[in-house]
Amino acid sequence: MWTVKVIGFSVLAASVSVELLNWLRRRYKARKTLNEVIFFPSELGCVEHLLRPSLPYPCYCALPHGVETSLSRLLRHILSASSSLDLCVFSFSNMDLCRAVLALHQKGVIIRVLSDKQYIAISGSQIGPLRQAGICVRSDVGSVYMHHKFALVDGSILITGSLNWTLTAVQGNMENLIVTMEPELVRPYIQEFNRLWEINDPLKHPNSVQAF
Amino acid sequence: MWTVKVIGFSVLAASVSVELLNWLRRRYKARKTLNEVIFFPSELGCVEHLLRPSLPYPCYCALPHGVETSLSRLLRHILSASSSLDLCVFSFSNMDLCRAVLALHQKGVIIRVLSDKQYIAISGSQIGPLRQAGICVRSDVGSVYMHHKFALVDGSILITGSLNWTLTAVQGNMENLIVTMEPELVRPYIQEFNRLWEINDPLKHPNSVQAF
Repeated sequence: MWTVKVIGFSVLAASVSVELLNWLRRRYKARKTLNEVIFFPSELGCVEHLLRPSLPYPCYCALPHGVETSLSRLLRHILSASSSLDLCVFSFSNMDLCRAVLALHQKGVIIRVLSDKQYIAISGSQIGPLRQAGICVRSDVGSVYMHHKFALVDGSILITGSLNWTLTAVQGNMENLIVTMEPELVRPYIQEFNRLWEINDPLKHPNSVQAF
Repeated sequence: MWTVKVIGFSVLAASVSVELLNWLRRRYKARKTLNEVIFFPSELGCVEHLLRPSLPYPCYCALPHGVETSLSRLLRHILSASSSLDLCVFSFSNMDLCRAVLALHQKGVIIRVLSDKQYIAISGSQIGPLRQAGICVRSDVGSVYMHHKFALVDGSILITGSLNWTLTAVQGNMENLIVTMEPELVRPYIQEFNRLWEINDPLKHPNSVQAF
């Protein structure tokens, strides 16, 4: 009888332990990981509801409405920023992405933009409007391309891939983006952004031209 | 006395369960996750020991020896392929990376290369030598850029980022690469590669020019 009880208790204890550990593992995993891949070119779709959610009337533009596209998924991640957005982009000329950054700036999100010094001044660049709005923009002072295309949302979400922030890249090219919260991936990008931000401080390079 | 025994057995069973689960979790995690970030430009360093490991004499080139660089880390991941390597690269002109691909081909690794039709024929492109060696190369038939820069090693390791497979990108530009085995990230890239491989089958586009 006692042997049965001992075995019973042992099985019960083991089961409870397994369940507890599984619950902890699921909870840890759910909190830690966001792993998403977005491919481009994006399908066409109106994104006004994301950029102007308080619009009192529906949008009547010619684009399809109510569809989730690659661009809308990217915009949702960017617009989820509540405290900071760090951008390190080779080329930035996409107006929808610029509007998203400006909307965050108006909400009080702290934004830092680092871009390539040659591409910062090309026709259609949105770096000018960002600077005019008071967003801190730095261009790299090196002689090579600053070819990164990544963003860090609230220091916890990394968005990176082949996609430059241009209209051609979003609507034309075949491109890819990873959106992840994996700490082993996010951490090095945070360190690299801070390193590049510091070495490209215009105060350290008084003779460099910060375009716009 | 029996109560003590019951409690003792329960505690023992619980401890063993916890240890067993932790061991299984660690083993699963170690097998599943490789998450690495590599930044460029690469430091200078000789990579002959990776590309020709059977070389009977040491290399006497002018580059530093015995140093781990961004390029050597990238090469190690590529050369780890034992069954397949799928490449989807906008521009491919780096000779060290070409030699790595050729070495894998000689080992019997099945290689598929998809590249941009405009950049496939530029001066210094390594697509020609790959085709001459008998590697299957396809160029995209679309009118836009095939701007991806990713590789899939044995269908389980994804290498992706801003880095084109060029000398300028590896040794000059500021670039980034993610190397990951995260299934949620790897799987979509495998599907996208297979999709692009199929739609760019030259048999489906008899009038398209497959350069080289």
